[in-house]
Amino acid sequence: MPTTRIRRASLLDRVVTAEEAARYIRDGMTVGMSGFTRAGEAKAVPMALAQRAKTDPLKITLITGASLGNDLDKTLAEAHVLSRRLPFQADPSLRKAINAGEVMFVDQHLSETVEMLRARTLGPIDVAVVEAVAITADGGIVPTTSVGNSATFAILAEKVIVEINTSQPPELEGLHDIYIPTRRPTRQPIPVMAPDQRVGLPFIPIDPDKIVAIVMTEKLDSSASVQAPDEDTRAIARHLIGLLEREVELGRLTHSLPPLQAGIGSVANAVLHGFIDSPFHDLTMYSEVLQDSTFDLIDAGKLNFASGSSITLSEAKYRAVIPNISHYKNRLVLRPQEISNHPEVVRRLGLICINTALEVDLYGNVNSTHVGGTHMMNGIGGSGDFARNASLSVFVTKSIAKDGRISSVVPMVSHVDHNEHDVDVIVTEVGIADLRGLAPRERAREIIANCVHPSYRGALEDYFERALKRGGQTPHIIEEALSWHVRLRETGTMLLPETVA
Amino acid sequence: MPTTRIRRASLLDRVVTAEEAARYIRDGMTVGMSGFTRAGEAKAVPMALAQRAKTDPLKITLITGASLGNDLDKTLAEAHVLSRRLPFQADPSLRKAINAGEVMFVDQHLSETVEMLRARTLGPIDVAVVEAVAITADGGIVPTTSVGNSATFAILAEKVIVEINTSQPPELEGLHDIYIPTRRPTRQPIPVMAPDQRVGLPFIPIDPDKIVAIVMTEKLDSSASVQAPDEDTRAIARHLIGLLEREVELGRLTHSLPPLQAGIGSVANAVLHGFIDSPFHDLTMYSEVLQDSTFDLIDAGKLNFASGSSITLSEAKYRAVIPNISHYKNRLVLRPQEISNHPEVVRRLGLICINTALEVDLYGNVNSTHVGGTHMMNGIGGSGDFARNASLSVFVTKSIAKDGRISSVVPMVSHVDHNEHDVDVIVTEVGIADLRGLAPRERAREIIANCVHPSYRGALEDYFERALKRGGQTPHIIEEALSWHVRLRETGTMLLPETVA
Repeated sequence: MPTTRIRRASLLDRVVTAEEAARYIRDGMTVGMSGFTRAGEAKAVPMALAQRAKTDPLKITLITGASLGNDLDKTLAEAHVLSRRLPFQADPSLRKAINAGEVMFVDQHLSETVEMLRARTLGPIDVAVVEAVAITADGGIVPTTSVGNSATFAILAEKVIVEINTSQPPELEGLHDIYIPTRRPTRQPIPVMAPDQRVGLPFIPIDPDKIVAIVMTEKLDSSASVQAPDEDTRAIARHLIGLLEREVELGRLTHSLPPLQAGIGSVANAVLHGFIDSPFHDLTMYSEVLQDSTFDLIDAGKLNFASGSSITLSEAKYRAVIPNISHYKNRLVLRPQEISNHPEVVRRLGLICINTALEVDLYGNVNSTHVGGTHMMNGIGGSGDFARNASLSVFVTKSIAKDGRISSVVPMVSHVDHNEHDVDVIVTEVGIADLRGLAPRERAREIIANCVHPSYRGALEDYFERALKRGGQTPHIIEEALSWHVRLRETGTMLLPETVA
Repeated sequence: MPTTRIRRASLLDRVVTAEEAARYIRDGMTVGMSGFTRAGEAKAVPMALAQRAKTDPLKITLITGASLGNDLDKTLAEAHVLSRRLPFQADPSLRKAINAGEVMFVDQHLSETVEMLRARTLGPIDVAVVEAVAITADGGIVPTTSVGNSATFAILAEKVIVEINTSQPPELEGLHDIYIPTRRPTRQPIPVMAPDQRVGLPFIPIDPDKIVAIVMTEKLDSSASVQAPDEDTRAIARHLIGLLEREVELGRLTHSLPPLQAGIGSVANAVLHGFIDSPFHDLTMYSEVLQDSTFDLIDAGKLNFASGSSITLSEAKYRAVIPNISHYKNRLVLRPQEISNHPEVVRRLGLICINTALEVDLYGNVNSTHVGGTHMMNGIGGSGDFARNASLSVFVTKSIAKDGRISSVVPMVSHVDHNEHDVDVIVTEVGIADLRGLAPRERAREIIANCVHPSYRGALEDYFERALKRGGQTPHIIEEALSWHVRLRETGTMLLPETVA
């Protein structure tokens, strides 16, 4: 007899334990799992796999949407199950294994992973493990709090394992819009022309015979540890909103703005919060992760609609939103990350994109990923998908880190994720640099004047003035360009000895 | 009485001398001029402007499609007429002025300039100067050997000057396909779904009243100085074609391949030549510049159709092709560079993109523009538009330059135009590194094994092995990362003293 969660009778006998399901995953396989920014990941099967690895060692290539919650990446890394991991992660234990060279991490633009799977330059996917609210009568999979790459994993995989999570409310059904681009060379345009446009199905359509196992689970998504806005992030929000107000005065934007995208994390979240007390209204979002601020903006009557690929919330917000998802459902859609981040759609809609930089340089190049130029933090995520095609590409960061021992504005970034061509505006708590239409030398003066912390401004200005004497489109003193990073490594601070005093 | 070249009678009295037309251009103006990779540039008015500047100094912002022929950038730079220049150039005199900081050069992805003009974050365009084959009875402008940004310049400009070039054959009419994306936020998909699909008009539609002056000219386009394939470029072509043949064997591609794009220059041109004696057939191109190799491939029966934004040929090829353009017309289309390079179309068609690197590093980051990390060569051009969205992004370079004093493969590039995420394959005459799906440490081993010149291989391997001891996703010895560039600057070679002998 079908249930409300498994509506296809023929699949009822596929319900097994996580341990039984995990047996489909064997050494050397490539596994695609649901999960995007700690939302909607498969929870039971990977845990069972890590458990099994204690006595039956195995290595897999794990591809997900983005980062996983419930310490799954930690558990899998510590069980040495991961030989390769893509396209994103954000876990300290896994990060350690990656930087030690134990796990090969393939850091990717989040829109591109499934493009490579379809072209078979990655994969094939042996097993897909997808968290679901329900399986439809046709065998369609209804995702939970994220879509990520789940649809393509399930469609391309030889075998599919579904985790039905009964703690995820059935009302999530209808939230998703599953559209997969047609194959090349006869691919059609992606028909999304507005954030609220639905173009696909509310479930992942697959051959139900591929579903080899169903596991019942009830674990909640992990909550995000969002830091409350502080004085610095409020200043960053203020600077950015000031710039947007000037755009309205110039007649280049209206008060409802193009759709907004914001990267994950406290700074971007805080910047979005800043819109609550702004003159902007009837906003829309076309983003990858919908965070607390999305729902605060909806509650404040500022945001009309939000399109994303996942919902990632703080503990309190999760309790307020997820059980009441019906209340928000007509203002939300969750799409595959290929579509939420697709260059075609991002460019067409002309998004305002707000992403976080780890460090920026004199000329507005951005490092989003590599500490000291070498050690991976999380990954580039969707920032490249968005920044390249935005109508306004904004990067935000506090001007200093580690109590001032690190300047977030340096002569030359030690790793380039986004170069000058894709960075329109840089904002720190100090101020805002509007770099649009400027040549590198002009960009440098804007950044020095507006973004760098006062304790580093003199040194940066001195570097630039001396570099200018050597000439060039992008002047540098090449033997000194990375000296701030070298000093940090050797002395523990980027400050010059005389300045430390 | 209308003529075949000026078919709208009311415009006949606008025919003036170049000097008279140039008077519409005044100090401080922003001027949009036709011209893309030395093809179809306005020739007479800019020369008259440079002449006038000798006695009547003025400064303008000059925006074009790409580089100009007929020494126009040289003449304008030497007349000190240019205060700002975008989005691309390739002239030694202008380059000198740019690197001296005299001309502010805004290096841009070639698809993005008109996007910024439409959004009014650049401009406004005071005067557009467009070379044409003819003006239609409706006042439409028929471009010559390039489209570039001319359509948007003419549509947005307050005043339009048309140069009718009678040396450009009338048969060019019908070659162009002018499609301009609709405005945001109601923009529709760009309807190009195949290289040979026409979606626009064969002329630039503007209000004929905006045409304030018409100048009759007869100067030819400059020819390209294409170097013949040599042993190295033939080896590069062979390596790449070998990889493509393996893709066919793996069933991932067919012998007709996805549409090809190739950057301008001798190496890319030589690589395309390599397809003549290959098993590939029924090829198509979706590129920005159509060079000698395009026509050689058509003549060889290998290439069915080529879409571009300009035709740039050697002197001999120009004489063979342009007067006989009717012979090729059903196999060609010229589009605005916004469309030839549009991320939406590039991604949809899944192009194989072949662009030239100035230098690449251990991890497959590419510098296309900055000599020594500081001095501009030409500009990023369309390489970013293509590489980011290609189904296969290939960068080619000879492994050494300047008689071996420079290695094109270095520990860390001194400027990043394309980072690891957008670089799938690197080819030198030494061999080919297929980097798809690899983590940085794996990319490094591929590049060391396959791309670096033997005279630098030991040093690069030594750097990498020592960097590995420091760990990280992308291991570097940060204080040594740019040391090869420093050594070149200080000693004239990247070779270590003991190696020089």
